[in-house]
Amino acid sequence: MKNQVNRDIPAEFLKEYQPFETTEIGNPIIQRSAPKVRAVTLGDDKLVNSVEEVIKKSGLKDGMTISFHHHFREGDYVFNHVMKVIKEMGFKDLTLAPSSLTNVMNDRVVECIKQGVITSITTSGMRGSLGEFVSRGGMKNPVILRSHGNRARAIEAGDIKIDVAFLGVPNADAYGNANAIYGKAVFGSLGYAKIDAQYADKVVLLTDTLVPYPNTPISIPQTQVDYVVKIDEIGDPEKIGAGATRFTKDPKELKIAQTVNQVIVNSPYFKNGFSFQTGTGGAALAVTRYLKEDMKEQNIKASFALGGITKPTVDLLNEGLVEKILDVQDFDKGAALGMAQNQNQQEIDASFYADPHNKGAVVNQLDIVILSALEIDTKFNVNVMTGSDGVLRGAIGGHQDAANAKMTIISAPIVRGRIPTVVKDVTTVITPGASVDVLVTEVGIAINPNRQDLVELFKQTKIPVFPIEELQARAEKIVGVPEPLVFTDRVVALVEYRDGTLIDVVKEIK
Amino acid sequence: MKNQVNRDIPAEFLKEYQPFETTEIGNPIIQRSAPKVRAVTLGDDKLVNSVEEVIKKSGLKDGMTISFHHHFREGDYVFNHVMKVIKEMGFKDLTLAPSSLTNVMNDRVVECIKQGVITSITTSGMRGSLGEFVSRGGMKNPVILRSHGNRARAIEAGDIKIDVAFLGVPNADAYGNANAIYGKAVFGSLGYAKIDAQYADKVVLLTDTLVPYPNTPISIPQTQVDYVVKIDEIGDPEKIGAGATRFTKDPKELKIAQTVNQVIVNSPYFKNGFSFQTGTGGAALAVTRYLKEDMKEQNIKASFALGGITKPTVDLLNEGLVEKILDVQDFDKGAALGMAQNQNQQEIDASFYADPHNKGAVVNQLDIVILSALEIDTKFNVNVMTGSDGVLRGAIGGHQDAANAKMTIISAPIVRGRIPTVVKDVTTVITPGASVDVLVTEVGIAINPNRQDLVELFKQTKIPVFPIEELQARAEKIVGVPEPLVFTDRVVALVEYRDGTLIDVVKEIK
Repeated sequence: MKNQVNRDIPAEFLKEYQPFETTEIGNPIIQRSAPKVRAVTLGDDKLVNSVEEVIKKSGLKDGMTISFHHHFREGDYVFNHVMKVIKEMGFKDLTLAPSSLTNVMNDRVVECIKQGVITSITTSGMRGSLGEFVSRGGMKNPVILRSHGNRARAIEAGDIKIDVAFLGVPNADAYGNANAIYGKAVFGSLGYAKIDAQYADKVVLLTDTLVPYPNTPISIPQTQVDYVVKIDEIGDPEKIGAGATRFTKDPKELKIAQTVNQVIVNSPYFKNGFSFQTGTGGAALAVTRYLKEDMKEQNIKASFALGGITKPTVDLLNEGLVEKILDVQDFDKGAALGMAQNQNQQEIDASFYADPHNKGAVVNQLDIVILSALEIDTKFNVNVMTGSDGVLRGAIGGHQDAANAKMTIISAPIVRGRIPTVVKDVTTVITPGASVDVLVTEVGIAINPNRQDLVELFKQTKIPVFPIEELQARAEKIVGVPEPLVFTDRVVALVEYRDGTLIDVVKEIK
Repeated sequence: MKNQVNRDIPAEFLKEYQPFETTEIGNPIIQRSAPKVRAVTLGDDKLVNSVEEVIKKSGLKDGMTISFHHHFREGDYVFNHVMKVIKEMGFKDLTLAPSSLTNVMNDRVVECIKQGVITSITTSGMRGSLGEFVSRGGMKNPVILRSHGNRARAIEAGDIKIDVAFLGVPNADAYGNANAIYGKAVFGSLGYAKIDAQYADKVVLLTDTLVPYPNTPISIPQTQVDYVVKIDEIGDPEKIGAGATRFTKDPKELKIAQTVNQVIVNSPYFKNGFSFQTGTGGAALAVTRYLKEDMKEQNIKASFALGGITKPTVDLLNEGLVEKILDVQDFDKGAALGMAQNQNQQEIDASFYADPHNKGAVVNQLDIVILSALEIDTKFNVNVMTGSDGVLRGAIGGHQDAANAKMTIISAPIVRGRIPTVVKDVTTVITPGASVDVLVTEVGIAINPNRQDLVELFKQTKIPVFPIEELQARAEKIVGVPEPLVFTDRVVALVEYRDGTLIDVVKEIK
């Protein structure tokens, strides 16, 4: 059958899944899941000497589900360390359920899949050698791709049941109180990991910095932690923000950033107390810079900035242009260090950020979000997952979630090199067009026709507005029509919408 | 049958209960409970105009369980306000499951019992007119008395299933983020209420101070809150600490406090990094003062102070004599205000404080606790619940929980007026003698014979040590043998031990 975004969902998946229907979540009533907890009693010692020993103590068995967070991003040492030991201990048939997978983990994951250690994966995304491997049919079971909010939802609902969570933290006391704002490999918010700590049956902390009891502030509390292991190094703090903080000098990106800013400041949302999420990447940082000037000039302050946080956003906080930062993840060292210095940079967990089935995530309160796209089609559907070669090379991240904002802006050039960005149909639908409002490109903007209010509004500005079909035609004129991708019938990945319905599938590339 | 502390447990209660056996909790594996959550979606408004309207929206029905916290102590306006409306709306057969009941609530509760609005109660304690009413057989169902740690355990295990929690907070934003450190009726830690917010199906916040979104710091998060109601006044901040902060001038109390301090500083636990809980009341405050002098003199710092917190403990923190305060509840305004000023006064919830079935409560890490007693018997069993007339007039509080400390000191005079404190058998066993180490009285101390290490140690000090039987005999000599209390066979209250086993029952007084 075809779902509401016209994607063919093979019948075999409709046993377990509802097809995607709408971006409107409504008010479902959800019986929450809860962990099975082994009481830690007077005199018990949580400190364990080695990763191998802690794996034994954790009760890990073949067929179980394990999790990790990706807060270290490309500086992660914990994942490879733990998975190496798990592999060597001979475990089989594990489900890997990290908050996401970064490049530094790729080779270990591929190796573990090949040896049958890992047979199922749910993640926000994958890239590089792992993306290639999976896209070329390397796994028997399809990978399940979930947004950050959807992962929190799935864990809270019991769709993902984590048996053992292995969580790297820059500091912890011997009883398991941890935060990520002090230590050697500081990464700021523990937003994704907090959910694992709360819901996993067994929680193992790995740290290179043991501190005296009681450790505060408490991001992960002792009440959720079974074991603490000291290892030599948990991560490379320099690589946590690798690439993310580059400020673009590309004239096309700067042009787009300027236009994004124009869209924001001309929108009805740009007023005292507005809120925004800018995300990462060169254009996003440039937007923050332009926005800052307009906020200063017009004496407008934001009530909060949301999302993955970068140093320029922390600067806005410290300069008083933003009242609060709600911080689920830090994209660079400056943002990570900021949390220790300003209490108004408030750590939040992934459920608070974006779970559509809790009692109200922040994304419900968000005015403006700027998101990226690998592709966007004439229905405003966005692909941030598969490349022009059909291979997995991205992550949903908070894309579907933050698109809940009152004004969702996609910032993208119409082409990248010889590859069109604005297309007739995206290869993979990640975020449905229904939640996308404005596309900003280097030649001008396109407004989703379901936002006639914005269509009328931007007629009165100098911003060049085009039907999205025209932007697509322009892209086609520049790069021609690419050869259609050839896939087999085999499904290598399932893309869930944030409410757990099936929005698309990714097929094996020929 | 008789349980391990020799209390007769009527057979009818042994269907639902295990009898108390041991203070050793072991490592039971507990399947946690979880709430049923109604998703709050984009555009939903949580602000409700009146208590009546919010009760309707909450879906409250006859037979359900409702909860409140007692952080306002004698300054609480929320309980009486909400219960009045519930009563007027005609609800019947509700179970009342507050963290505790204070005197200011008594008349309303009695009224609600008489009218069949409330037919079951679980609480930490009760006093005054309510204690009288229940002790004289005013309720059909026995009240279930639980310590703060046990209440957290019971909620987490699903033994208490809260349908609607009504939580007063000194400030909240319209989406439900709240803390108790700013506003008009500030009470500091939301430690008990945090558990209700986490586990209740429906959570209603009541506040007199709405603040802009997003409110931080976040003690109760929006993700756990269904509705927010603004009312005129939630409480009288002056009465939060009423009575608790009086510094004793009674020579007997000062003598006891001095001896308690001598026991502490002569114990092996008094060294750098030690931890303590002193509690409230005149003698406790005096202990803190004496202890402070010794800490300064001997250059000893505590790693943490725990429990219900008072201003003198906050002073220790600010003077650098205590590294951290782990704060589940504040007993006076000074302590309540302290949390906003010093990040090392860390808010913790009731589970973190004392749930015996989580992955490690703080009481497992506690070195020294000073606790009070209405009665203590020659088996070191302590009663803090029933008076010399057999009537309910106390609260378990954290008594059973904190007695988990490495050295549990009971501080009490051998007699109070014509009433003996040291007795052959306590009227009601709340905290079993197995977890009590030292009794300090105005004439000297008694050491639990199961602590031969302390017996040997205190032989080398000048502190007068007596067999507890001798202290009991002295008390008897002063006040004689009181007439035995006469109870009917009817059970009016069940006393749980912190692990949920039955340690004693309270019978109707004739």
